[in-house]
Amino acid sequence: MFTSNRCKANPILWSQEVVKDGTVRAVVLNSGGANCYTGAEGFQTTHAVAEQVANNLGIGAVDVVVCSTGLIGLANPRQNLLDGVDAATAALSAAGGSDAAAAIMTTDSVSKQVVVEGAGWSVGGMAKGAGMLAPQLATMLVVLTTDAVVPAADLDAALRAATRVSFDRLDSDGCMSTNDTVTVMASGASGITPSLPDFTEALTQACTDLAMQLLRDAEGADHEIAITVLNAATEDDAVAVGRSVARSNLFKAAVFGNDPNWGRVLASIGTTDAAFDPADLDVAMNGVWVCKQSTPHADPATVDLKPREVSVTIDLKAGSERATVWTNDLTHAYVHENSAYSS
Amino acid sequence: MFTSNRCKANPILWSQEVVKDGTVRAVVLNSGGANCYTGAEGFQTTHAVAEQVANNLGIGAVDVVVCSTGLIGLANPRQNLLDGVDAATAALSAAGGSDAAAAIMTTDSVSKQVVVEGAGWSVGGMAKGAGMLAPQLATMLVVLTTDAVVPAADLDAALRAATRVSFDRLDSDGCMSTNDTVTVMASGASGITPSLPDFTEALTQACTDLAMQLLRDAEGADHEIAITVLNAATEDDAVAVGRSVARSNLFKAAVFGNDPNWGRVLASIGTTDAAFDPADLDVAMNGVWVCKQSTPHADPATVDLKPREVSVTIDLKAGSERATVWTNDLTHAYVHENSAYSS
Repeated sequence: MFTSNRCKANPILWSQEVVKDGTVRAVVLNSGGANCYTGAEGFQTTHAVAEQVANNLGIGAVDVVVCSTGLIGLANPRQNLLDGVDAATAALSAAGGSDAAAAIMTTDSVSKQVVVEGAGWSVGGMAKGAGMLAPQLATMLVVLTTDAVVPAADLDAALRAATRVSFDRLDSDGCMSTNDTVTVMASGASGITPSLPDFTEALTQACTDLAMQLLRDAEGADHEIAITVLNAATEDDAVAVGRSVARSNLFKAAVFGNDPNWGRVLASIGTTDAAFDPADLDVAMNGVWVCKQSTPHADPATVDLKPREVSVTIDLKAGSERATVWTNDLTHAYVHENSAYSS
Repeated sequence: MFTSNRCKANPILWSQEVVKDGTVRAVVLNSGGANCYTGAEGFQTTHAVAEQVANNLGIGAVDVVVCSTGLIGLANPRQNLLDGVDAATAALSAAGGSDAAAAIMTTDSVSKQVVVEGAGWSVGGMAKGAGMLAPQLATMLVVLTTDAVVPAADLDAALRAATRVSFDRLDSDGCMSTNDTVTVMASGASGITPSLPDFTEALTQACTDLAMQLLRDAEGADHEIAITVLNAATEDDAVAVGRSVARSNLFKAAVFGNDPNWGRVLASIGTTDAAFDPADLDVAMNGVWVCKQSTPHADPATVDLKPREVSVTIDLKAGSERATVWTNDLTHAYVHENSAYSS
């Protein structure tokens, strides 16, 4: 799965071709430069990196996914990358997962890994990302592996299902990256073929766990906010309403200030075309129903927003679908960290 | 013109009915409470305010537009409002324009007025607003008057044309209010009937002037940013691209840090479905073309972002339409002012 941003980085342009035949044998990741909007020279750098990996491992370059992260418009020095490939392939080890997860950190404060056990098989994954999380995928590079036997088409279907309800519902700051990639590879080493539902569930659990790790490590955030929309006419409506609240700078700044300003939730809901009656909306914050039937209900002063984890619940009373969208608060630290990123 | 937010405040619900017959004889505005999501009691308060104005002026309540601004979900004490109406109607004066413009200030740091002279007639206006500016209209209350002779239908058409390219293109923080109102009243006192194009031009000039005053007074902003999109296939495409950049917290934080991070401009353009070739985009900041044909061009270090006024120019090379969208940077002061609004 790749970013849906139409301004795609060179490694995305390369890797989209690599995955078309359903076979990936290696993933190589670099930070320091996104290799995005760097022209033909940049694409050749990505190609050279894939060739170097392939040569070192005795595989084909067309089976090597390349991921890059960092500043847009900055040419990545090719020799540095090739030297890095040599160092990384020389250090390859079955026990090197944690080293890899640490190596891909950029502004991350902690490395992010997950293991989900199946019946005789497992799914493992690592992620890097700390902000610019939205709205389809996030600014993140994720690599998942499994030793289950899973045909390429099933793997693709399972990954689409898993990302749809995990990374795709993370909306830390509404900004969509040019480099997002989630790769999953199945080796079949366990010899066991799980049912597609079982495998999809395990993969979804792994992706959700990594998504929550990304959320908790978002740049400058003081709160993780889960916005759950109940009784929507459609799941799309529920996601649209959740995302509208997740994108409200005013709401996010209020949460930073521990201010249960539910009016900003309603003002965001009203910007969507989801099915609901504007005169019959219920809103709860951290379990306190501060608004019922679009009128004030419980005293907002009873809402305690000091804990990091904040929940907003919106009852649309328009159907039976639901969805949760996750975001962070808008803080001084967010502004600080993102106001001097390239300097 | 009223907010397109579906969660509308009581004064909007009232005033939408008032304007239907094309006649408005008075506008009354209060701050301190938005009278939004305050239930049937809140609507009755709006009605009572209109009645009080009508009684004091000897007109019908159905010709009185009511505007409120402040916190959502807060009941406005009715007697305070009625007492305020009495005080305001007692102080009515042909020379009271500046007093009125000052009286409607909330978090505004300066009062906002404009006069545009026609041939024997003029348009005057006042506005309040300082943030929560987007995306159709802004969190603002605007009253415009003219002594030109303009039939109600022409007045409506002129106002729609004027707001479409002024207030509707202000996107300070992407947040849409529940109370936005722009009212225009024509007295015909000059006895002169301007052509509709002439009147529309004057009204557009007045609205644009007030919009720029709102932009310059946005809460906590250090920069005014004009994003101009050139050579779009359609005007809608140009607006969509401009708005996507205006909504990018990462881009806005970069401008606050005087960082010409044009990659964040491209990442925003890529989130739209406007017509363009991702491999052939040009971007300038303050007149310096930092990106040409989607590759780095002039050195970003030559872009000076210290002046308050910042321009971003995007050449889509897909047609001949253009539009400008205005926004502000994302600052520590914005976070501060909006994190403790209700406390």
